[in-house]
Amino acid sequence: MKKVYLKDIAKDLNVSKTAVSLVLNGKGNENKISQETQQKIIEYAKKHNYIPNQLARGLSRGKSETIGLIIPNISDTFYSKVAGVIERKAKENGYTVLFSSSYENPEKEGELIQSMLNRQVDGLIIASTQQNQKEIDFLKKEKFPFVLFDRHYPSKNTDYVVVDNYDGTRKITEHLLNLGRKKIGLITLKPGLEPIAQRLLGYKDALATFNIDLDKDYIFEIEREEYIHEIEKAIQSLVLGKNPIDAIVFSTHYLASQGLRLLKKLNISVPEKVAIVSFDELSAFDIVDPPITSVIQPINKIGCSVIDILLNKIEGISEQGTKGIVLETKLEIRQSCGQ
Amino acid sequence: MKKVYLKDIAKDLNVSKTAVSLVLNGKGNENKISQETQQKIIEYAKKHNYIPNQLARGLSRGKSETIGLIIPNISDTFYSKVAGVIERKAKENGYTVLFSSSYENPEKEGELIQSMLNRQVDGLIIASTQQNQKEIDFLKKEKFPFVLFDRHYPSKNTDYVVVDNYDGTRKITEHLLNLGRKKIGLITLKPGLEPIAQRLLGYKDALATFNIDLDKDYIFEIEREEYIHEIEKAIQSLVLGKNPIDAIVFSTHYLASQGLRLLKKLNISVPEKVAIVSFDELSAFDIVDPPITSVIQPINKIGCSVIDILLNKIEGISEQGTKGIVLETKLEIRQSCGQ
Repeated sequence: MKKVYLKDIAKDLNVSKTAVSLVLNGKGNENKISQETQQKIIEYAKKHNYIPNQLARGLSRGKSETIGLIIPNISDTFYSKVAGVIERKAKENGYTVLFSSSYENPEKEGELIQSMLNRQVDGLIIASTQQNQKEIDFLKKEKFPFVLFDRHYPSKNTDYVVVDNYDGTRKITEHLLNLGRKKIGLITLKPGLEPIAQRLLGYKDALATFNIDLDKDYIFEIEREEYIHEIEKAIQSLVLGKNPIDAIVFSTHYLASQGLRLLKKLNISVPEKVAIVSFDELSAFDIVDPPITSVIQPINKIGCSVIDILLNKIEGISEQGTKGIVLETKLEIRQSCGQ
Repeated sequence: MKKVYLKDIAKDLNVSKTAVSLVLNGKGNENKISQETQQKIIEYAKKHNYIPNQLARGLSRGKSETIGLIIPNISDTFYSKVAGVIERKAKENGYTVLFSSSYENPEKEGELIQSMLNRQVDGLIIASTQQNQKEIDFLKKEKFPFVLFDRHYPSKNTDYVVVDNYDGTRKITEHLLNLGRKKIGLITLKPGLEPIAQRLLGYKDALATFNIDLDKDYIFEIEREEYIHEIEKAIQSLVLGKNPIDAIVFSTHYLASQGLRLLKKLNISVPEKVAIVSFDELSAFDIVDPPITSVIQPINKIGCSVIDILLNKIEGISEQGTKGIVLETKLEIRQSCGQ
């Protein structure tokens, strides 16, 4: 027998997933869902043996001492490191963390949120695809404890912990400008996510401050999944083109390490011919050749802030309202920028 | 009201967790648990509102299309990369993966296994602390689908996927010996885990093959949690001691990168004065200064083999019996060994 999910009930009865969830959480009346619809949902759930974890949760109102963590990609060392901090801090407080990756897929993210709720987590931590307004609204309405990190919904009132992405790229770009570099390329990701948009803005504003006209041919926005292929074209165009650059800002650590790998392959001397800097780092950036100047995200602070806020919510000891924390990045000057 | 766990029931009634789990899974009779004990457990579970996910599982026998993955540490890039492969392959097959870290703590690992079972996963993947014989026996007896990877229980008949750790360090040590290095140190972890024991053995046998006497002062076994501090002493002793070495084998990627960092700090030229090689690698090992010669674990093959075996078990299409897969490592020669 196949397990029946909330979405199946919603689909088969032609009602919203939110309605199903509300009804099965005993919140149908207060949300003005008609008696008829409520009846229909409850009967369906019973008939199809919908194993009512949500119901169970509603009944017990106990705590599972478990937190759900949804991140874009566990193979990205930034997320795996933050996950490690969150896990250790949670453990100190008697909580277990279950995590899963959304792979930037909003539908998958929505399913993971539902799946975590079904598995009775006490709270959720989400580095969101930023395309799941509905689920976020649902969690808010339900007053379910959750904290967003890395990516949040700026237009919504939620708890979140992010870094100042704008300030970060602005700082590293200005550092290059102060060193006399003038033709500075940017290799970044295709827009869509707030942090990436902010990083682009920081780069642009740094140039503007130094009265340097923006050259659109110097900006390469790369498809995340295809970055290994696309970055090669970008590097070639920037360093071998008609008007070659003298520095490159990389907006993520994996773009920076792949970029350096390609510059080495082309025998372009770094930093003499092309200086490079990176937003975020890999743990080996201090021993690569040359060591890469980076703005560093405060991994430990991010993880600790997230778990602090969430546990306070879960245990009901936080104040009313929401908390938005924006953490500063730190410029770590190494040799790749020409100091 | 606090949620009641299996272990609470076991403790309060002074029976084993296994007994509780068997009874709540409706397997009390076939396992010859007395009617009295069964009654006691069931009444206690009802009274304390033990939300019977296990019971639910027993009732529905449905599938949750979810797999549990338990690893030692998500911040370790080896595990986060394997987790990424497993997650992507699982997704292709319609399964979601929930993961959590045991931090080498057998008790925590045991709790995670129970917690995943309570959360109705269809199967488990475990890189075990190798100190949870009981839970493994329980899973086997229950015929619950699970696969071990990276670390397994050699004396038990289970499905597993590991790499040939012995052959890996033997290969890199012999490579150094073939290049004329004779005084080869080993920096590794404190024994306890099978892969670490195998790596030590590979190093020893390589020396023996070249008729080189083992010098115990050349072997440093480091406490995992303290490696940043302890490795400094090891490096100093090896390179600045009375009888300095001319090469070092590091048995993990994080020992190797920290080791290189320290050698640089001491101005020891690599590979001229000290050649270094690493078991396993970081993604940046090809661009560090100098690029580090490593034996590489086949991350992709590990993840794919694990998920293949598990899904075949879950979907009941595998043959009877168990499958043990030992994958080969690959020697990647870079500059740090002196070629």
